[in-house]
Amino acid sequence: MSKTDNKNALTKRSDDYSQWYLDVIAAADLAEHSPVKGCMVIKPYGYAIWENIQKVLDQKIKATGHQNAYFPLFVPKSFLSREASHVKGFAKECAVVTHHRLINDPASDGVMVDPAAKLEEELVVRPTSETIIYAMYSKWIKSWRDLPLLINQWANIVRWEMRTRLFLRTTEFLWQEGHTVHATEQEAEDEARKILDLYKGFTEEYLAMPVIQGQKSESEKFAGALRTYCIEAMMQDGRALQAGTSHHLGQNFAKAFNIQFTDQDGTLKYAWQTSWGVSTRLIGALIMCHSDDKGLVLPPEIAPIKVVIVPIGKTQEEKKLVEDKIGELLIGFKSVDPDFDARRVYDRREDLTPGYKFNEWEKKGVPIRIEIGPKDVAANQLVAVYRDNGEKEAISLAGNWVALLKKRLDDIQQRLFERAKARLNEDSYRFDDYDKFKSQLAENPGFIYSHWCGSDKCEAEIAAETKATICCIPFDTAAETGKCIKCNSSSQKRVIFAKAY
Amino acid sequence: MSKTDNKNALTKRSDDYSQWYLDVIAAADLAEHSPVKGCMVIKPYGYAIWENIQKVLDQKIKATGHQNAYFPLFVPKSFLSREASHVKGFAKECAVVTHHRLINDPASDGVMVDPAAKLEEELVVRPTSETIIYAMYSKWIKSWRDLPLLINQWANIVRWEMRTRLFLRTTEFLWQEGHTVHATEQEAEDEARKILDLYKGFTEEYLAMPVIQGQKSESEKFAGALRTYCIEAMMQDGRALQAGTSHHLGQNFAKAFNIQFTDQDGTLKYAWQTSWGVSTRLIGALIMCHSDDKGLVLPPEIAPIKVVIVPIGKTQEEKKLVEDKIGELLIGFKSVDPDFDARRVYDRREDLTPGYKFNEWEKKGVPIRIEIGPKDVAANQLVAVYRDNGEKEAISLAGNWVALLKKRLDDIQQRLFERAKARLNEDSYRFDDYDKFKSQLAENPGFIYSHWCGSDKCEAEIAAETKATICCIPFDTAAETGKCIKCNSSSQKRVIFAKAY
Repeated sequence: MSKTDNKNALTKRSDDYSQWYLDVIAAADLAEHSPVKGCMVIKPYGYAIWENIQKVLDQKIKATGHQNAYFPLFVPKSFLSREASHVKGFAKECAVVTHHRLINDPASDGVMVDPAAKLEEELVVRPTSETIIYAMYSKWIKSWRDLPLLINQWANIVRWEMRTRLFLRTTEFLWQEGHTVHATEQEAEDEARKILDLYKGFTEEYLAMPVIQGQKSESEKFAGALRTYCIEAMMQDGRALQAGTSHHLGQNFAKAFNIQFTDQDGTLKYAWQTSWGVSTRLIGALIMCHSDDKGLVLPPEIAPIKVVIVPIGKTQEEKKLVEDKIGELLIGFKSVDPDFDARRVYDRREDLTPGYKFNEWEKKGVPIRIEIGPKDVAANQLVAVYRDNGEKEAISLAGNWVALLKKRLDDIQQRLFERAKARLNEDSYRFDDYDKFKSQLAENPGFIYSHWCGSDKCEAEIAAETKATICCIPFDTAAETGKCIKCNSSSQKRVIFAKAY
Repeated sequence: MSKTDNKNALTKRSDDYSQWYLDVIAAADLAEHSPVKGCMVIKPYGYAIWENIQKVLDQKIKATGHQNAYFPLFVPKSFLSREASHVKGFAKECAVVTHHRLINDPASDGVMVDPAAKLEEELVVRPTSETIIYAMYSKWIKSWRDLPLLINQWANIVRWEMRTRLFLRTTEFLWQEGHTVHATEQEAEDEARKILDLYKGFTEEYLAMPVIQGQKSESEKFAGALRTYCIEAMMQDGRALQAGTSHHLGQNFAKAFNIQFTDQDGTLKYAWQTSWGVSTRLIGALIMCHSDDKGLVLPPEIAPIKVVIVPIGKTQEEKKLVEDKIGELLIGFKSVDPDFDARRVYDRREDLTPGYKFNEWEKKGVPIRIEIGPKDVAANQLVAVYRDNGEKEAISLAGNWVALLKKRLDDIQQRLFERAKARLNEDSYRFDDYDKFKSQLAENPGFIYSHWCGSDKCEAEIAAETKATICCIPFDTAAETGKCIKCNSSSQKRVIFAKAY
């Protein structure tokens, strides 16, 4: 928000990757910590990225037949307990409302909790909404005619995290959570996979972030799910980041919440369910996937500002000349493409030098900077500078420059995806030797495809020794007979081990 | 959600207005109570109305220079206390988080609050966000260059209400809250009034709901504000509904949170602030303003579905004929206006009669129903039925029928506004006699313009005797010397008394 604090250089990725991440967020003015432990403030520029994510995802979710709704923030404590593994997974991180009133504190100027206003049953601030939503579903669903039920919710979520990091892990975060109900296991399975494809399409197409689709191991799956599917992205430090999950819940919650329907054959059956979500964590992934030592780098498809125009000129005469030319440009933007026009900024602040502005917009990751000075006016051209590779290009204003700029934005989007994809390939390894496996993770982590016997024990021992977990059991690797990297028992498939965010 | 429960008639307004309101909500499937006391579930059709409200308001808020951001759900207890009248206003209805973990309950199968996980300072679930936001603002604002700061937030809010009513008063609700900071009193005043105009424009243009702008009395103003401005609508039972508020906060919070800036003259000054909001309450207002004994009536501008097409035909041959014709219509919608097309439904459910469908869409308030049967195909026409007045019109498909339907939607929008406006005029009274004042309120409540001396005492006595409060001190009434309706002291202006929701 402050218009000062613009000059400090960022920590380099090679010096301290974690600090660099925080520096990028601060330099781009995306978010900051709040006085409430673990809760962040998402500042306007960061929130604009979230709004763009929401807009696209919401369209995709609706286009696949889902409707939005809104369910209560609070979950009665007893609801959480109904599905045994669910409560086990979330009990440790629940914010609990116990009272409903404050009164004057006789011992101070302030207020205190009114002991007389204790709730009969405590309420948990939703750490996820399966239980409160399915309590409603059990009332709504009676017949096969009521299925499938396809609902999504945009909401805030609270999980009491001990170690937090802006966007990646915060006590409160924003997300969407889909909750669907189906008549058959196959339909639920198809839904869970369809959404996983939707997520992959979104992250790759809009965030330019390649992801690997797979299934979580039993120890990593969602508390209460039959199976958890996920998309996993690789950050620039070789670590894995879970970018979205889609759960086939089986009939676990249907049985806990009595979601039954009369099928076409007249018999009463438990329903099959899915739930799935992505969160503001995606913004953290976006930052760590593309940004560089100069600051944020944003894929054009999701950038709040796609193009910034910076005028250059010293004398009053030069300034006037440049301003008139930019005036023509603005008309060009607007007439050719109003949507594009809405995402360009003309930085005409008088009290700042062009150099200062270049630096500021670079830190904010705007994909294209347009510079126009007196020489450009004379040559009837603009100079475009591309944020991802720093290259400059003079573009004639005699031709269809708006179309060319849009093409360049597409090029940037494509380059970012390909760069991330190349990194994903380069930093993926296949090891059958546990020593190599360990040294790779210690020296230069990445995605390691190794055989695993399927036991929790080996998984836990590997995690204890290397800090790597099973990122996922990928869909796209062929069955292959081998031996568990840890215990040498037989294995039918490689899984991906990685250090995870 | 359930596709059954479609036949029951609604309670009539004249029999039981409160029950009618709940019946309309149930019949249109907008919302229902949740197992969490006072919290509602906003069902897909109700939420779609909220999404339409959000979409338009968000555009208007951004078009006036505001940016969205997101601040924490939780407010540390001590923050609330910093502004004395603010905490006084909200302490009684605060949901308080005291613990951050659940553990197994040895006495049952369930879980219990972990006594060891007690928070050092309790957190209040935001009943409004002034205090948590202004704690951040005090860090962000240093110089006049940082002003004005114009931020809006879309969020959920919790106020522990004892008596709740769907949409109108719920423990949790959704809203937008704007929070701005300015260098001068005049700028803050202009902002508060500008937003009030924006709200009036929105409610009148989109919700077809005429409102009166005015100022709240001291006893009714926002806790912590210098002045509260409001828009007030009249429901069909003559009661007032506060549809939106805009507060000039003065320097009250700036002093409590130390929001100071160095002005251009080099001196340090406290800033001036505003806050303003509208909530899901607007949906309640919308329902009570326009709906009738058949169910919901929605203004086309905000209706999730503007047009529903119901095919009529008995034999297979007739059905085929009608279906082909409707196929042509669908192409027409899509080619002429994709936005319009996205808000029309073709109800081709096989197992329901046309009569059943008519009834269902009527209850859901869809502005235009299109009927097409074999005779219409033969005559190359469609039959449009208008929800607000029940009139039918045959429209030839030879002409520009899409444009005509859009015109008819505009007509409906206009009629709804004018009907509400006429009611507002009819049920407004000027009384100088307290007996007449009382009997009017007892028999047929409305907006009563009467003189008031300005004292809290008279205001409170009138409320105790008549249940009417000062709805607002309206902007658009001229100064006029008179005598307080209660105490006969002198008064310079009439204010509006009404029974309020």
